[in-house]
Amino acid sequence: MKKITVVGAGSWGTALSMVLADNGNFVSLWSHREDQADEIRNKHINSKYLPGIILPAGVKGTSSLAEALEDSDAVLLVVPAKSMREVLGKIKGLLKHPVLFIHGVKGIEPGTFKRMSEIIKEEIPPELRKAVVVLSGPSHAEEVSLRHPTTVAVASEDNGAAKEAQDIFFNHYFRVYTNEDIIGVEIGGALKNIIALGAGISDGLGYGDNAKAALITRGLAEISRLGTKLGAHPLTFIGLTGMGDLIVTCTSVHSRNWRAGNMLGKGQNLRDILARMGMVVEGVRTAEAAFALSQKEKVEMPITEAIYRVLFEEKLPKDAVDELMGRDKKDEIAALTESLQDKKWSES
Amino acid sequence: MKKITVVGAGSWGTALSMVLADNGNFVSLWSHREDQADEIRNKHINSKYLPGIILPAGVKGTSSLAEALEDSDAVLLVVPAKSMREVLGKIKGLLKHPVLFIHGVKGIEPGTFKRMSEIIKEEIPPELRKAVVVLSGPSHAEEVSLRHPTTVAVASEDNGAAKEAQDIFFNHYFRVYTNEDIIGVEIGGALKNIIALGAGISDGLGYGDNAKAALITRGLAEISRLGTKLGAHPLTFIGLTGMGDLIVTCTSVHSRNWRAGNMLGKGQNLRDILARMGMVVEGVRTAEAAFALSQKEKVEMPITEAIYRVLFEEKLPKDAVDELMGRDKKDEIAALTESLQDKKWSES
Repeated sequence: MKKITVVGAGSWGTALSMVLADNGNFVSLWSHREDQADEIRNKHINSKYLPGIILPAGVKGTSSLAEALEDSDAVLLVVPAKSMREVLGKIKGLLKHPVLFIHGVKGIEPGTFKRMSEIIKEEIPPELRKAVVVLSGPSHAEEVSLRHPTTVAVASEDNGAAKEAQDIFFNHYFRVYTNEDIIGVEIGGALKNIIALGAGISDGLGYGDNAKAALITRGLAEISRLGTKLGAHPLTFIGLTGMGDLIVTCTSVHSRNWRAGNMLGKGQNLRDILARMGMVVEGVRTAEAAFALSQKEKVEMPITEAIYRVLFEEKLPKDAVDELMGRDKKDEIAALTESLQDKKWSES
Repeated sequence: MKKITVVGAGSWGTALSMVLADNGNFVSLWSHREDQADEIRNKHINSKYLPGIILPAGVKGTSSLAEALEDSDAVLLVVPAKSMREVLGKIKGLLKHPVLFIHGVKGIEPGTFKRMSEIIKEEIPPELRKAVVVLSGPSHAEEVSLRHPTTVAVASEDNGAAKEAQDIFFNHYFRVYTNEDIIGVEIGGALKNIIALGAGISDGLGYGDNAKAALITRGLAEISRLGTKLGAHPLTFIGLTGMGDLIVTCTSVHSRNWRAGNMLGKGQNLRDILARMGMVVEGVRTAEAAFALSQKEKVEMPITEAIYRVLFEEKLPKDAVDELMGRDKKDEIAALTESLQDKKWSES
């Protein structure tokens, strides 16, 4: 039995806490809101994020980060990408011994384009961390909290740490695969929302399943091209954190990204859509970052570029599709196959 | 301008004939039914398979295979997999000069497990064929006939022939990618229906998006393992004919395979389901063939095996899922990564 600190009591942090408690661990679930921490501790519910779900006794709520971190074996970070550095700063100030860091955050840092594991390594000194692991995959939190069958992948530069995380989370409804490629796992999770926006645009234009499947598949191909340029293994993108997560995101009409894209496809403009939705649409920021990254790394990403121009340069979605369809004739996997010749993977 | 013979006037053969005619080719569309051929020739419609669609003037219907083949530059085969050999036998008897063979057939031959391109090479002597190309991808025929954006891949052992097929079909609504891996393209298209059955079973059991995404992703992983064992490139399965086609098949409730699986998941048995549906459910036969092939090739295919046992050994779907979730801990892509060390692909 381990003590695990879960930082962030949104729906995903809470659902993962349930998995950890079901596996016999003692879970200290930290929320920055005192009322929420009290509700978790005293009523065993998280009424805002997982309504109707009773949390196992092993999950204890707290709003004291110091208490949450005391005697901890592992810290699981489940906070918004933009809050990552700030939260890590607080943890660094309170932590007194090295722990295993695991994160379940999908996103890259605006401006720096850094992955979450890179930020953890920057903010937490080596003497306070055993290793850094990412956990990602196709996983609606609500379904995990209902203990419906779910699969995810854990990746780390440290194979032993990935296996340790696999052991901590694995159970009969939560199947965990290891993967050596932390770059690919983080990039896939972060960039999928761009494609969800695109899927919404395609549906909004009145196109069919063929167009949407093309967009998802060729969208993943260009994410793979960028990912491999950054050091990922191309086969990671065929897995749970690439294709798997993309399927869940692009086929759910509940996705905010899909809904925003759908309105764009129907001719509305971005400012009006964002004003009306009144909440963050991750894909919009990610499209901006990925487009900048593709320019910097000189990787061809025509779908990302088209979505960027629709979002920020008022390009008409219909014109963007016509241009995508009219591009030069291509081979399907040639660019990816080349990346396999890279020294890093051909020696592994 | 070329003369192209299209053999098979179902919805897919007819939709592809429209693409070819739109590109300025003369298309002779053969149907074994005289009334259908007459309707296509005289009324420019195929009321049974593409109701409401007017065919371009360049598509001529005929029920004479000899007439269809006369002066032909290429033969496009779009017939049921089980009729392939018989149709090729007739073509061989009538053809007087070598042509390019292209096929758009998804399936493997029952019993022999042979791919369609292998059957073409067996039945048509070398002096009557220039090359063999497969055309496959995520493509509902109805959407192609409405000229909605669609992407497909063409693959051949002969690169020049794949490029020739790309040139013949490519236009502003029909984007064609080349791929060197004919084995991967044919295996992906043939085996996807097993996974569609599984997706239906998962939904029928009342599981959610997480479980379905897991099934699709891990299902494709095992198809990739079998495919690479048979000589395919693993990256083909991330493409249009693997993941792309799978997305279209598994997310459409119109799919017969999904519907049959859904009833299985709800506790009905196979015989009753097939009797009530009164039509062929491809995935059932394909599951049987793929399970036999996995045994023969010694490739681990736990999802295919589970579906096979649900179909043919009255295993309860719920028990099958529990066993799949409880299997040993695995790495996500290790088995596929190994296949990349194969001489064939590491030298290419």
